[in-house]
Amino acid sequence: MPEGEPYFMFFFHGFPLSGGTRISRLPLVRNISELPQNNYGRPGLSHTTIAGSVLHGMKEIEVWLQTFAPGSSTPIHRHSCEEVFVVLKGQGTLYLAPSSHSKYPGNPQEFHIFPNSTFHVPVNDAHQVWNTDEHEDLQVLVVISRPPVKVFTYDDWSVPHTASKLKFPYYWDEECYQTTSSSKDEL
Amino acid sequence: MPEGEPYFMFFFHGFPLSGGTRISRLPLVRNISELPQNNYGRPGLSHTTIAGSVLHGMKEIEVWLQTFAPGSSTPIHRHSCEEVFVVLKGQGTLYLAPSSHSKYPGNPQEFHIFPNSTFHVPVNDAHQVWNTDEHEDLQVLVVISRPPVKVFTYDDWSVPHTASKLKFPYYWDEECYQTTSSSKDEL
Repeated sequence: MPEGEPYFMFFFHGFPLSGGTRISRLPLVRNISELPQNNYGRPGLSHTTIAGSVLHGMKEIEVWLQTFAPGSSTPIHRHSCEEVFVVLKGQGTLYLAPSSHSKYPGNPQEFHIFPNSTFHVPVNDAHQVWNTDEHEDLQVLVVISRPPVKVFTYDDWSVPHTASKLKFPYYWDEECYQTTSSSKDEL
Repeated sequence: MPEGEPYFMFFFHGFPLSGGTRISRLPLVRNISELPQNNYGRPGLSHTTIAGSVLHGMKEIEVWLQTFAPGSSTPIHRHSCEEVFVVLKGQGTLYLAPSSHSKYPGNPQEFHIFPNSTFHVPVNDAHQVWNTDEHEDLQVLVVISRPPVKVFTYDDWSVPHTASKLKFPYYWDEECYQTTSSSKDEL
Protein backbone atom coordinates (compact mmCIF):
# COMPACT_ATOMS: atom_id res chain seq x y z
CA MET A 1 0.00 0.00 0.00
CA PRO A 2 1.51 3.35 -0.95
CA GLU A 3 1.35 5.77 1.94
CA GLY A 4 1.36 9.54 1.72
CA GLU A 5 1.08 9.55 -2.07
CA PRO A 6 -1.42 12.32 -2.83
CA TYR A 7 -2.77 10.98 -6.12
CA PHE A 8 -3.72 7.66 -4.66
CA MET A 9 -4.62 8.90 -1.22
CA PHE A 10 -7.25 11.11 -2.72
CA PHE A 11 -9.16 8.16 -4.04
CA PHE A 12 -8.62 5.72 -1.25
CA HIS A 13 -11.68 5.43 0.85
CA GLY A 14 -12.54 4.20 4.28
CA PHE A 15 -15.41 4.77 6.60
CA PRO A 16 -15.65 5.16 10.34
CA LEU A 17 -16.91 2.18 12.32
CA SER A 18 -18.69 2.41 15.62
CA GLY A 19 -15.52 1.79 17.56
CA GLY A 20 -13.79 4.69 15.85
CA THR A 21 -11.62 2.40 13.72
CA ARG A 22 -11.38 2.56 9.91
CA ILE A 23 -11.26 -0.22 7.39
CA SER A 24 -8.15 -0.63 5.34
CA ARG A 25 -7.95 1.84 2.50
CA LEU A 26 -8.41 0.33 -0.92
CA PRO A 27 -7.71 1.53 -4.45
CA LEU A 28 -10.71 2.70 -6.45
CA VAL A 29 -10.14 0.33 -9.39
CA ARG A 30 -9.59 -3.22 -8.20
CA ASN A 31 -8.66 -6.40 -10.04
CA ILE A 32 -11.44 -8.87 -9.21
CA SER A 33 -9.14 -11.86 -9.65
CA GLU A 34 -6.89 -10.47 -6.91
CA LEU A 35 -9.70 -9.95 -4.39
CA PRO A 36 -9.99 -12.35 -1.45
CA GLN A 37 -12.17 -15.41 -1.94
CA ASN A 38 -13.33 -17.93 0.58
CA ASN A 39 -15.82 -20.80 0.98
CA TYR A 40 -16.80 -19.80 4.52
CA GLY A 41 -16.96 -23.42 5.55
CA ARG A 42 -19.32 -24.42 2.76
CA PRO A 43 -17.84 -27.08 0.45
CA GLY A 44 -17.97 -26.14 -3.23
CA LEU A 45 -18.50 -22.42 -2.70
CA SER A 46 -16.18 -19.60 -3.67
CA HIS A 47 -17.40 -16.15 -2.59
CA THR A 48 -15.80 -12.81 -3.44
CA THR A 49 -17.26 -9.49 -2.34
CA ILE A 50 -16.72 -7.23 -5.36
CA ALA A 51 -18.29 -4.16 -3.77
CA GLY A 52 -19.44 -4.48 -0.20
CA SER A 53 -20.98 -2.60 2.66
CA VAL A 54 -18.62 -3.66 5.41
CA LEU A 55 -15.57 -3.99 3.17
CA HIS A 56 -15.93 -0.97 0.87
CA GLY A 57 -18.46 1.32 2.53
CA MET A 58 -21.30 0.75 0.07
CA LYS A 59 -24.61 1.89 1.53
CA GLU A 60 -27.27 0.92 -0.99
CA ILE A 61 -25.95 -1.87 -3.20
CA GLU A 62 -23.56 -4.78 -2.87
CA VAL A 63 -22.06 -6.99 -5.58
CA TRP A 64 -20.71 -10.52 -5.15
CA LEU A 65 -19.02 -13.05 -7.41
CA GLN A 66 -19.93 -16.60 -6.43
CA THR A 67 -18.86 -19.92 -7.89
CA PHE A 68 -20.60 -23.20 -7.06
CA ALA A 69 -18.85 -26.47 -7.80
CA PRO A 70 -20.95 -29.26 -9.37
CA GLY A 71 -23.55 -30.47 -6.88
CA SER A 72 -23.20 -27.52 -4.50
CA SER A 73 -25.82 -24.93 -3.61
CA THR A 74 -26.85 -22.02 -1.47
CA PRO A 75 -28.88 -22.82 1.63
CA ILE A 76 -32.65 -22.44 1.40
CA HIS A 77 -33.00 -18.86 2.54
CA ARG A 78 -34.78 -15.53 2.28
CA HIS A 79 -33.85 -11.90 2.83
CA SER A 80 -35.79 -8.64 2.77
CA CYS A 81 -33.83 -7.06 -0.06
CA GLU A 82 -33.94 -7.10 -3.83
CA GLU A 83 -31.52 -9.53 -5.47
CA VAL A 84 -30.46 -9.84 -9.12
CA PHE A 85 -28.39 -12.71 -10.53
CA VAL A 86 -26.38 -12.72 -13.73
CA VAL A 87 -25.15 -16.18 -14.71
CA LEU A 88 -21.63 -15.83 -16.11
CA LYS A 89 -21.04 -19.52 -16.74
CA GLY A 90 -22.42 -22.94 -16.00
CA GLN A 91 -25.99 -23.97 -15.39
CA GLY A 92 -28.25 -25.04 -12.61
CA THR A 93 -31.63 -24.71 -10.98
CA LEU A 94 -33.31 -21.89 -9.11
CA TYR A 95 -35.84 -23.11 -6.57
CA LEU A 96 -38.26 -20.36 -5.62
CA ALA A 97 -41.15 -20.44 -3.17
CA PRO A 98 -43.08 -17.19 -3.40
CA SER A 99 -45.10 -18.00 -0.32
CA SER A 100 -44.33 -15.37 2.24
CA HIS A 101 -48.06 -15.28 2.95
CA SER A 102 -48.06 -18.96 3.92
CA LYS A 103 -46.71 -20.35 7.16
CA TYR A 104 -43.79 -22.06 5.44
CA PRO A 105 -42.20 -21.96 1.96
CA GLY A 106 -43.76 -25.19 0.66
CA ASN A 107 -42.86 -26.87 -2.62
CA PRO A 108 -40.73 -24.50 -4.66
CA GLN A 109 -41.08 -23.94 -8.38
CA GLU A 110 -38.02 -24.87 -10.45
CA PHE A 111 -36.34 -22.73 -13.07
CA HIS A 112 -33.46 -23.70 -15.31
CA ILE A 113 -30.67 -21.13 -15.23
CA PHE A 114 -28.02 -21.05 -17.94
CA PRO A 115 -25.02 -19.05 -19.21
CA ASN A 116 -25.85 -15.40 -19.89
CA SER A 117 -29.22 -15.64 -18.16
CA THR A 118 -30.53 -13.27 -15.52
CA PHE A 119 -33.24 -13.44 -12.90
CA HIS A 120 -34.25 -11.62 -9.77
CA VAL A 121 -35.54 -12.95 -6.50
CA PRO A 122 -38.52 -11.03 -5.13
CA VAL A 123 -38.10 -9.56 -1.64
CA ASN A 124 -38.63 -12.16 1.09
CA ASP A 125 -39.27 -15.13 -1.23
CA ALA A 126 -37.49 -18.25 0.02
CA HIS A 127 -35.10 -19.57 -2.61
CA GLN A 128 -32.11 -21.76 -3.32
CA VAL A 129 -29.65 -21.93 -6.22
CA TRP A 130 -28.08 -25.28 -7.15
CA ASN A 131 -25.36 -26.21 -9.60
CA THR A 132 -26.98 -29.27 -11.13
CA ASP A 133 -24.26 -29.85 -13.71
CA GLU A 134 -22.00 -32.84 -13.15
CA HIS A 135 -18.83 -31.27 -14.49
CA GLU A 136 -18.89 -27.50 -14.82
CA ASP A 137 -18.80 -24.76 -12.19
CA LEU A 138 -21.75 -22.39 -11.93
CA GLN A 139 -20.54 -18.80 -11.68
CA VAL A 140 -22.88 -15.92 -10.89
CA LEU A 141 -22.72 -12.21 -10.21
CA VAL A 142 -25.13 -11.31 -7.44
CA VAL A 143 -26.43 -7.84 -6.68
CA ILE A 144 -28.39 -7.03 -3.53
CA SER A 145 -29.93 -3.91 -2.05
CA ARG A 146 -30.01 -2.92 1.64
CA PRO A 147 -26.56 -4.23 2.60
CA PRO A 148 -25.23 -5.79 4.72
CA VAL A 149 -27.47 -8.77 4.01
CA LYS A 150 -29.58 -10.31 6.78
CA VAL A 151 -30.21 -13.95 5.91
CA PHE A 152 -32.92 -16.27 7.28
CA THR A 153 -32.14 -19.93 6.54
CA TYR A 154 -34.39 -23.00 6.42
CA ASP A 155 -33.30 -26.60 6.91
CA ASP A 156 -36.00 -27.66 4.45
CA TRP A 157 -38.98 -26.21 2.58
CA SER A 158 -41.45 -27.19 5.31
CA VAL A 159 -39.79 -25.18 8.09
CA PRO A 160 -42.17 -22.39 9.20
CA HIS A 161 -40.99 -18.88 8.37
CA THR A 162 -41.11 -18.15 12.09
CA ALA A 163 -38.65 -20.99 12.76
CA SER A 164 -36.12 -19.94 10.09
CA LYS A 165 -32.75 -18.97 11.53
CA LEU A 166 -31.34 -15.47 11.26
CA LYS A 167 -27.63 -15.30 10.45
CA PHE A 168 -26.37 -11.75 10.87
CA PRO A 169 -23.79 -10.59 10.14
CA TYR A 170 -23.57 -13.13 7.33
CA TYR A 171 -20.39 -15.18 7.00
CA TRP A 172 -18.45 -12.87 4.66
CA ASP A 173 -19.47 -9.77 6.59
CA GLU A 174 -18.63 -11.43 9.88
CA GLU A 175 -15.12 -12.10 8.60
CA CYS A 176 -14.75 -8.47 7.55
CA TYR A 177 -15.80 -7.26 10.95
CA GLN A 178 -13.18 -9.53 12.48
CA THR A 179 -10.52 -8.40 10.01
CA THR A 180 -11.32 -4.79 10.74
CA SER A 181 -11.11 -5.40 14.42
CA SER A 182 -7.81 -7.27 14.26
CA SER A 183 -6.18 -4.57 12.14
CA LYS A 184 -6.82 -1.92 14.75
CA ASP A 185 -3.17 -1.67 15.64
CA GLU A 186 -2.27 -0.52 12.16
CA LEU A 187 -4.55 2.48 12.25
CA MET B 1 -46.18 -14.68 -24.88
CA PRO B 2 -48.11 -17.61 -23.41
CA GLU B 3 -51.41 -16.45 -22.00
CA GLY B 4 -53.42 -18.18 -19.32
CA GLU B 5 -50.74 -20.75 -18.57
CA PRO B 6 -50.75 -21.08 -14.78
CA TYR B 7 -47.13 -22.17 -14.28
CA PHE B 8 -45.74 -19.24 -16.18
CA MET B 9 -48.38 -16.77 -15.15
CA PHE B 10 -47.46 -17.29 -11.55
CA PHE B 11 -43.98 -15.98 -12.11
CA PHE B 12 -44.71 -13.32 -14.64
CA HIS B 13 -44.66 -9.95 -13.05
CA GLY B 14 -45.90 -6.53 -13.89
CA PHE B 15 -46.55 -3.46 -11.84
CA PRO B 16 -49.22 -0.81 -12.01
CA LEU B 17 -48.25 2.51 -13.58
CA SER B 18 -49.83 5.81 -12.71
CA GLY B 19 -52.19 5.60 -15.64
CA GLY B 20 -53.49 2.25 -14.49
CA THR B 21 -51.67 0.39 -17.28
CA ARG B 22 -49.32 -2.55 -16.76
CA ILE B 23 -46.03 -3.33 -18.38
CA SER B 24 -45.76 -6.45 -20.47
CA ARG B 25 -45.33 -9.55 -18.37
CA LEU B 26 -41.90 -11.11 -18.60
CA PRO B 27 -40.51 -14.53 -17.69
CA LEU B 28 -38.49 -14.71 -14.49
CA VAL B 29 -35.34 -16.16 -16.08
CA ARG B 30 -34.34 -14.22 -19.17
CA ASN B 31 -31.64 -14.79 -21.78
CA ILE B 32 -29.56 -11.60 -21.74
CA SER B 33 -28.52 -12.05 -25.36
CA GLU B 34 -32.20 -11.95 -26.37
CA LEU B 35 -33.01 -8.75 -24.46
CA PRO B 36 -33.51 -5.55 -26.44
CA GLN B 37 -30.45 -3.40 -27.02
CA ASN B 38 -30.21 0.09 -28.43
CA ASN B 39 -27.73 2.95 -28.82
CA TYR B 40 -30.32 5.63 -27.99
CA GLY B 41 -28.85 7.91 -30.62
CA ARG B 42 -25.32 7.70 -29.25
CA PRO B 43 -22.82 6.29 -31.78
CA GLY B 44 -20.78 3.37 -30.45
CA LEU B 45 -23.09 2.56 -27.53
CA SER B 46 -25.07 -0.60 -26.96
CA HIS B 47 -27.27 -0.54 -23.85
CA THR B 48 -29.33 -3.41 -22.45
CA THR B 49 -31.38 -3.12 -19.28
CA ILE B 50 -30.85 -6.46 -17.56
CA ALA B 51 -33.03 -5.66 -14.55
CA GLY B 52 -34.78 -2.33 -14.57
CA SER B 53 -37.19 -0.17 -12.64
CA VAL B 54 -39.49 0.84 -15.47
CA LEU B 55 -39.09 -2.38 -17.43
CA HIS B 56 -39.12 -5.01 -14.68
CA GLY B 57 -40.46 -3.30 -11.60
CA MET B 58 -37.20 -3.16 -9.64
CA LYS B 59 -37.42 -0.67 -6.78
CA GLU B 60 -33.95 -0.53 -5.24
CA ILE B 61 -31.40 -1.74 -7.78
CA GLU B 62 -30.99 -1.71 -11.52
CA VAL B 63 -28.49 -3.62 -13.68
CA TRP B 64 -27.34 -2.68 -17.20
CA LEU B 65 -25.05 -4.25 -19.78
CA GLN B 66 -23.27 -1.60 -21.82
CA THR B 67 -20.81 -1.92 -24.68
CA PHE B 68 -18.72 0.99 -25.94
CA ALA B 69 -17.08 0.78 -29.36
CA PRO B 70 -13.46 2.00 -29.63
CA GLY B 71 -13.34 5.75 -29.11
CA SER B 72 -16.85 6.06 -27.64
CA SER B 73 -17.80 7.15 -24.14
CA THR B 74 -20.52 8.10 -21.70
CA PRO B 75 -21.30 11.81 -21.38
CA ILE B 76 -19.70 13.67 -18.48
CA HIS B 77 -22.41 13.24 -15.89
CA ARG B 78 -23.39 12.78 -12.27
CA HIS B 79 -26.27 11.15 -10.40
CA SER B 80 -27.27 10.92 -6.76
CA CYS B 81 -27.11 7.15 -6.54
CA GLU B 82 -24.45 4.55 -5.89
CA GLU B 83 -22.95 2.96 -9.01
CA VAL B 84 -20.73 -0.11 -9.36
CA PHE B 85 -19.00 -1.16 -12.60
CA VAL B 86 -17.68 -4.60 -13.46
CA VAL B 87 -15.53 -4.61 -16.61
CA LEU B 88 -16.31 -7.78 -18.56
CA LYS B 89 -13.99 -7.10 -21.47
CA GLY B 90 -11.91 -4.37 -23.08
CA GLN B 91 -10.18 -1.47 -21.45
CA GLY B 92 -10.50 2.25 -21.11
CA THR B 93 -10.32 5.22 -18.82
CA LEU B 94 -12.50 6.37 -15.95
CA TYR B 95 -12.44 10.15 -15.49
CA LEU B 96 -13.63 11.12 -12.03
CA ALA B 97 -13.99 14.56 -10.49
CA PRO B 98 -14.88 14.22 -6.83
CA SER B 99 -15.63 17.88 -6.49
CA SER B 100 -19.25 18.21 -5.59
CA HIS B 101 -18.16 20.84 -3.07
CA SER B 102 -16.69 23.02 -5.85
CA LYS B 103 -18.73 25.10 -8.27
CA TYR B 104 -17.82 22.85 -11.23
CA PRO B 105 -16.18 19.42 -11.67
CA GLY B 106 -12.73 20.71 -12.70
CA ASN B 107 -9.92 18.54 -14.00
CA PRO B 108 -10.80 14.90 -13.43
CA GLN B 109 -8.43 12.25 -12.21
CA GLU B 110 -7.79 9.38 -14.62
CA PHE B 111 -7.99 5.67 -13.84
CA HIS B 112 -7.13 2.82 -16.14
CA ILE B 113 -9.89 0.22 -16.24
CA PHE B 114 -9.24 -3.27 -17.58
CA PRO B 115 -10.84 -6.72 -18.01
CA ASN B 116 -12.11 -8.19 -14.74
CA SER B 117 -11.70 -4.91 -12.89
CA THR B 118 -14.31 -3.23 -10.72
CA PHE B 119 -14.82 0.27 -9.40
CA HIS B 120 -17.59 2.33 -7.92
CA VAL B 121 -18.51 5.93 -8.51
CA PRO B 122 -19.27 7.86 -5.33
CA VAL B 123 -22.70 9.50 -5.11
CA ASN B 124 -22.84 12.79 -7.04
CA ASP B 125 -19.24 12.71 -8.34
CA ALA B 126 -19.06 13.83 -11.98
CA HIS B 127 -17.54 11.10 -14.13
CA GLN B 128 -17.08 9.74 -17.62
CA VAL B 129 -16.07 6.33 -18.95
CA TRP B 130 -14.17 6.11 -22.26
CA ASN B 131 -13.16 3.17 -24.39
CA THR B 132 -9.62 4.25 -25.21
CA ASP B 133 -8.70 1.08 -27.06
CA GLU B 134 -8.33 1.36 -30.82
CA HIS B 135 -9.71 -2.04 -31.67
CA GLU B 136 -11.64 -3.75 -28.90
CA ASP B 137 -15.08 -3.05 -27.46
CA LEU B 138 -15.34 -2.11 -23.79
CA GLN B 139 -18.12 -4.07 -22.11
CA VAL B 140 -19.31 -3.33 -18.59
CA LEU B 141 -21.99 -4.43 -16.18
CA VAL B 142 -23.36 -1.42 -14.34
CA VAL B 143 -25.33 -1.52 -11.10
CA ILE B 144 -27.11 1.51 -9.69
CA SER B 145 -29.28 2.20 -6.67
CA ARG B 146 -32.34 4.48 -6.50
CA PRO B 147 -33.76 3.66 -9.96
CA PRO B 148 -34.89 5.04 -12.32
CA VAL B 149 -31.68 7.04 -12.76
CA LYS B 150 -31.78 10.84 -12.85
CA VAL B 151 -28.78 12.04 -14.86
CA PHE B 152 -27.20 15.50 -14.86
CA THR B 153 -24.91 16.00 -17.88
CA TYR B 154 -22.06 18.47 -18.48
CA ASP B 155 -20.78 19.62 -21.87
CA ASP B 156 -17.30 19.87 -20.36
CA TRP B 157 -15.56 19.69 -16.99
CA SER B 158 -15.78 23.46 -16.43
CA VAL B 159 -19.57 23.66 -16.59
CA PRO B 160 -20.92 24.70 -13.16
CA HIS B 161 -22.92 22.04 -11.35
CA THR B 162 -25.84 24.45 -11.35
CA ALA B 163 -25.72 24.61 -15.17
CA SER B 164 -25.60 20.85 -15.73
CA LYS B 165 -28.63 19.53 -17.58
CA LEU B 166 -31.09 17.10 -16.01
CA LYS B 167 -32.24 14.30 -18.31
CA PHE B 168 -35.16 12.44 -16.75
CA PRO B 169 -36.46 9.97 -17.59
CA TYR B 170 -33.15 8.88 -19.09
CA TYR B 171 -33.13 7.62 -22.68
CA TRP B 172 -33.72 3.92 -21.99
CA ASP B 173 -36.39 4.62 -19.39
CA GLU B 174 -38.05 7.13 -21.68
CA GLU B 175 -38.31 4.48 -24.36
CA CYS B 176 -39.87 2.05 -21.90
CA TYR B 177 -42.45 4.61 -20.85
CA GLN B 178 -43.33 5.08 -24.52
CA THR B 179 -43.45 1.33 -25.12
CA THR B 180 -45.68 0.88 -22.12
CA SER B 181 -47.95 3.63 -23.26
CA SER B 182 -48.19 2.37 -26.82
CA SER B 183 -48.97 -1.18 -25.69
CA LYS B 184 -52.01 -0.02 -23.72
CA ASP B 185 -54.39 -1.67 -26.14
CA GLU B 186 -52.98 -5.10 -25.38
CA LEU B 187 -53.71 -4.86 -21.70
